[in-house]
Amino acid sequence: MVYREEIQIETAGHGDMQEITKRVEAIAGRSGMQAGIVHIFNVGSTGMIGTIEYEPGLERDLPEMLDRLVPPSLDYGHERAWNDGNGHSHLQSTMMGSGITVPFAAGELLLGEWQQIFHMEADIRPRNRRLLVTVIGE
Amino acid sequence: MVYREEIQIETAGHGDMQEITKRVEAIAGRSGMQAGIVHIFNVGSTGMIGTIEYEPGLERDLPEMLDRLVPPSLDYGHERAWNDGNGHSHLQSTMMGSGITVPFAAGELLLGEWQQIFHMEADIRPRNRRLLVTVIGE
Amino acid sequence: MVYREEIQIETAGHGDMQEITKRVEAIAGRSGMQAGIVHIFNVGSTGMIGTIEYEPGLERDLPEMLDRLVPPSLDYGHERAWNDGNGHSHLQSTMMGSGITVPFAAGELLLGEWQQIFHMEADIRPRNRRLLVTVIGE
Repeated sequence: MVYREEIQIETAGHGDMQEITKRVEAIAGRSGMQAGIVHIFNVGSTGMIGTIEYEPGLERDLPEMLDRLVPPSLDYGHERAWNDGNGHSHLQSTMMGSGITVPFAAGELLLGEWQQIFHMEADIRPRNRRLLVTVIGE
Repeated sequence: MVYREEIQIETAGHGDMQEITKRVEAIAGRSGMQAGIVHIFNVGSTGMIGTIEYEPGLERDLPEMLDRLVPPSLDYGHERAWNDGNGHSHLQSTMMGSGITVPFAAGELLLGEWQQIFHMEADIRPRNRRLLVTVIGE
Repeated sequence: MVYREEIQIETAGHGDMQEITKRVEAIAGRSGMQAGIVHIFNVGSTGMIGTIEYEPGLERDLPEMLDRLVPPSLDYGHERAWNDGNGHSHLQSTMMGSGITVPFAAGELLLGEWQQIFHMEADIRPRNRRLLVTVIGE
């Protein structure tokens, strides 16, 4: 069986993180399935989905880490071609990944107590984001 | 339901990127399923699959970023053991991941307009690559 | 169809890697399914799952690479909030990912000859880890 819903979020621009665990879990519940996997996917090439202990310290640390490893720069080939200032946004997103998969059972995501699902905006301006949540199971 | 096809590509060696979006989408179409997920997997430990805005700037930037973060070096334990010059290839591949999952519906991949699926060769020589595309849905 | 088993492992602390390919393959076999995907997920926010050529050189190189890119530091916001010394553990785990998906057929994982599945402990102390292995297929 397959069940899909879309989550819409508004982001505040580069490095903005939002926790979406409860919204994903509610979709798994509405699927009516008893067991399976949930796939969460950011539509677009400058956002990312992952798991993290969602707390204010790491909410600051993750974007800082990404800007340190893959900093904004005008030297990217992407900038020379498009000059839109978000070359690092694309590279950070590709490195971290557009989606993740999480197991569930009986309407609950099988995450650790300190393990949550986040979306991070990597683009340099606020965006309206569509996240596709696909439940596969029985 | 499960449907699988294999994509074969020839790569030109380290940092060679190829877009495979249309080939993956055609497989989702041939599956005959109406909704679900598509999993794309690189068989082998020195290639990677991801999503990116596929354009010449980023096609240069991604391999450069990976070589900056995880550079070629003779100091890797892998080199001391095997002396085959591709320690960084393995590490880049493990960091980026061997596969991704993408949602689809009615024969179309649910990607953003500027979001494509790529394969990147991380090994130091040309390779023939087998990519396994598994469609799961109904 | 959905089939799930749990793998339990004891880790020796930060950077400890363990190969779990055979244990995952045995679960795919016990599922009785003929084709599909296997999802392997680390429950908790300081462990990771990936694929690698599992050999002693890379077993040393991967943790070293991660500590070089995302080093231990008391400057992380996570440390200022919690002071538990594992800010880098969280960031390394989020960057690498909590889980992967691998295709299988007829009880065999469709990996390359030199491509294995590993768990790496990123936390700074030994942990008992629960890995959830979910088989989806037919």
